[in-house]
Amino acid sequence: MATLNGSQSTIKALLASDISICFGNPGTSEMHFLAALDQIKGIRCVLGLHESIVTGAADGYYRLSGKPAVTLLHLAPGLANGLSNLHNAKKANSGILNIVGEHATYHLKYDAPLSGDIEGVARPMSHWVKTSTDVDRVSHDAALAASIAKEKSGQIATLILPADVSWLSTEVISPAVDPMPLKRVEASVIQSIAKTIHQYKNVVLLLGGVALRGKALAYAGKIAEKTGCRILSEGQNARIERGHGRVAVQRLPFDVKGAQETLKDTQHLILIGAKLPIAFFAYPNLPSLLIPQNCEVFTLATHENFVELALEDLMVELGAQNIVEKTSVFTLNSMPTGDVNTDSLGQFLGACLPDNAIVVDEAVSTGRGFFKPTEQARQHDWLNSMGSSLGYALPVAIGCAIAQPDRPVVALVGDGSAMFSVQSLWTMARENLNVTVLIFANKAYKILKNELVSVGLTSPTQTALNMLSLSSPTLDWVSMAKAHGVEGFRVGKIEALVKIFNHCINQRGTQLIEVDL
Amino acid sequence: MATLNGSQSTIKALLASDISICFGNPGTSEMHFLAALDQIKGIRCVLGLHESIVTGAADGYYRLSGKPAVTLLHLAPGLANGLSNLHNAKKANSGILNIVGEHATYHLKYDAPLSGDIEGVARPMSHWVKTSTDVDRVSHDAALAASIAKEKSGQIATLILPADVSWLSTEVISPAVDPMPLKRVEASVIQSIAKTIHQYKNVVLLLGGVALRGKALAYAGKIAEKTGCRILSEGQNARIERGHGRVAVQRLPFDVKGAQETLKDTQHLILIGAKLPIAFFAYPNLPSLLIPQNCEVFTLATHENFVELALEDLMVELGAQNIVEKTSVFTLNSMPTGDVNTDSLGQFLGACLPDNAIVVDEAVSTGRGFFKPTEQARQHDWLNSMGSSLGYALPVAIGCAIAQPDRPVVALVGDGSAMFSVQSLWTMARENLNVTVLIFANKAYKILKNELVSVGLTSPTQTALNMLSLSSPTLDWVSMAKAHGVEGFRVGKIEALVKIFNHCINQRGTQLIEVDL
Repeated sequence: MATLNGSQSTIKALLASDISICFGNPGTSEMHFLAALDQIKGIRCVLGLHESIVTGAADGYYRLSGKPAVTLLHLAPGLANGLSNLHNAKKANSGILNIVGEHATYHLKYDAPLSGDIEGVARPMSHWVKTSTDVDRVSHDAALAASIAKEKSGQIATLILPADVSWLSTEVISPAVDPMPLKRVEASVIQSIAKTIHQYKNVVLLLGGVALRGKALAYAGKIAEKTGCRILSEGQNARIERGHGRVAVQRLPFDVKGAQETLKDTQHLILIGAKLPIAFFAYPNLPSLLIPQNCEVFTLATHENFVELALEDLMVELGAQNIVEKTSVFTLNSMPTGDVNTDSLGQFLGACLPDNAIVVDEAVSTGRGFFKPTEQARQHDWLNSMGSSLGYALPVAIGCAIAQPDRPVVALVGDGSAMFSVQSLWTMARENLNVTVLIFANKAYKILKNELVSVGLTSPTQTALNMLSLSSPTLDWVSMAKAHGVEGFRVGKIEALVKIFNHCINQRGTQLIEVDL
Repeated sequence: MATLNGSQSTIKALLASDISICFGNPGTSEMHFLAALDQIKGIRCVLGLHESIVTGAADGYYRLSGKPAVTLLHLAPGLANGLSNLHNAKKANSGILNIVGEHATYHLKYDAPLSGDIEGVARPMSHWVKTSTDVDRVSHDAALAASIAKEKSGQIATLILPADVSWLSTEVISPAVDPMPLKRVEASVIQSIAKTIHQYKNVVLLLGGVALRGKALAYAGKIAEKTGCRILSEGQNARIERGHGRVAVQRLPFDVKGAQETLKDTQHLILIGAKLPIAFFAYPNLPSLLIPQNCEVFTLATHENFVELALEDLMVELGAQNIVEKTSVFTLNSMPTGDVNTDSLGQFLGACLPDNAIVVDEAVSTGRGFFKPTEQARQHDWLNSMGSSLGYALPVAIGCAIAQPDRPVVALVGDGSAMFSVQSLWTMARENLNVTVLIFANKAYKILKNELVSVGLTSPTQTALNMLSLSSPTLDWVSMAKAHGVEGFRVGKIEALVKIFNHCINQRGTQLIEVDL
């Protein structure tokens, strides 16, 4: 067997583990790994100009492909830059394999400028962390990390690769490691929940994760049609399949009162890949838990279970397999006219979202009302931020467009959010990704202005207002696009938006539209 | 005594601790704190559109003012976004007080979207971390955190503030807590080192940290003048005072061979606020430690000591107090002409740096040769990245300009580095900061292209080259400046650079010059 270095053996193991893409921002400690990626072909390499782009792209790639990507990150600070989108990915149950370069093992004691506690940085946002210190074990560690990333509907695995382990020689190449299979839900649980649904009114199926896609969603629709129970989804979802031909699912409202109102008559809540409905934040006189006091909660399946099979079993148990579920039908309402506002934007999306679109939604305050008017849009997927750390949408759009290059990706982003990962535009341009970016430019962290009032500061002065305002100076998004090699447009009226959007959707490549609010 | 909430009592304690600035990017969990900043005046608030701007600005502010700033950060992901510049600040011994909002204590168990292990995220880049869970203790915790930030030449203190601790009532306001004083170096150490300097040739004083400023630097100059020992500085320095009227200090070269050559005859190395000279990275056939094998190493003072006093004691012990140290004299050489390259740029800086300039240097590959030709420039301070995580210069320039608003700040930044914290430009524009940004646009992570060859990949293909290239598309820095509200220029010849630079230096506010390489 030919002798390889540690990096080369790692890449062989990654290829055996069906890893085919690497998002990265490498530095010196990753040079052996990068050289190996160059020598052993089969893993596509995509550069991000900040690590939040790298990790966010891996999140988006997983949400659409179901496959972990590798990220290539530069020691503790490089990993740190990617943490906030790893936070979002972790909350979305996306599988990612981070490979972080480290100083040579013998060099660590000198505390060089880039030295840091990589394991410590990784741990809060990883399910699994390991520093690989033996060149004959490194390919196995990589295969193990890939399997961990695939388990439990997707996990974050972080493998730390010291430079000397990268450059030393080995003859060992590990085969792929099988991930632990998802657990099947026990028959007794299925039967008990079926009984509850059969017996009671005011039953809600709360769907989350993969329950909102494909057959699982159809099964839930059949169950609802047969038994009269309601279907809701969590307030934010990693990816929900909706629009024409899909079962329509109402989302739990974001605000405490709205969520309480939606759940007020619910006496039996069945969690299916979803978590207990709770408030996004606690407020002095509002509850954390949003279900009524007398509501009984059952768990059909968590992300550790085979959710689709659990829903199939439940459907069969309830005799709903031959029921035809109710699905949305695309309905072209009249085009909105005049001012751009939440209502007209919702109408616009309902009418104009192209068939098979991937919508990445980080329109924090502007977009709260977009869900209802797009229920009868053309068939599409809708992605939310699950960790709510700003700057998720643009990088996630990159990953989506790379995973499914023939589908149109539409990123809906507030100006404040977009600024957290604005460098994404460059990667979109470089990779010629099929993305239309809508920047909702309200020139503020608008959601926080409401929060400020709700904490009792009814007459804030400039001290506080300046910390929530994006004006003076106003960000110029057409120039921002141009700076990154992307074509940009600015619109102030909804008719112009419709026209430009349709133009953009019919072009390949990336375009940005600043929607001036 | 009037009743305050936890945030208000915290701010009173911060004011008592002489904290006067807050760089922040707050979210919902920080709204009570922001409201309190609005109600109790005295702390200036500066918004950054990404947390790396916030923490980097606090680093720059400390380097020029010697005072810790507060950063205001949003839970675990917000802190995570600021980590890489906290890494740089920690390595620079800059004092910073991070205040991180957290969910209400009773809400944590529900694992809301923004929940995360804040302490875990903070620990790798902090000297001190505490979650304050008692409203009657929170102002004391804040005062303690402020004192910790001031100790040992500056430390990173992270105080985590749960929302309910922010909003509950208290009557307790803590007075300031005295920081532990710096340790005075014992007389026996001074005497022993004086004896070595007196007795031997080939002695090097290796200066770092505050030893490179003010009286400390002058004392070192007198010692050198009297005894014939050499003065060197570490390869990177938090802030070095140089140019006209200052003792010239040669910097240890970055590359292993250059550093070894510089130190090759050194038999006695005296560390004064500096660490042992080591390689930036380990390479297969090069040493980690850069001093000759027979070199004896002594430590006069670390950052935990009163460095200036140690140098004064040493000077007196050597009878050098009445010696006049040799200092640089501003010499205006002829202006460079023609192409922009490392040599002509160095000449340009030597001639054109304005008096009293603050130079923030992150010109990673372009700027390696700038030090020598600026030795006889007008009087200025020169700041390096101490942690070498990219994206330090633009935020640090913000902090410098706020700490010393009447001095011209010149940021020297590679295009790759600048993209890690490009949002800084907006804060510069908003605060009308006196900063001239020079972007050295070589359209590559150029330093890494050399590294790739040094790991043995002599003929890389596009797979590797694309990961180190910033071309296709080319970043347009004039548009980038405009997007952020900053005036931008592009120059391709050195004459144009001289002209535009002089124009910019004579204006208030922020300008950006793209130097096309």
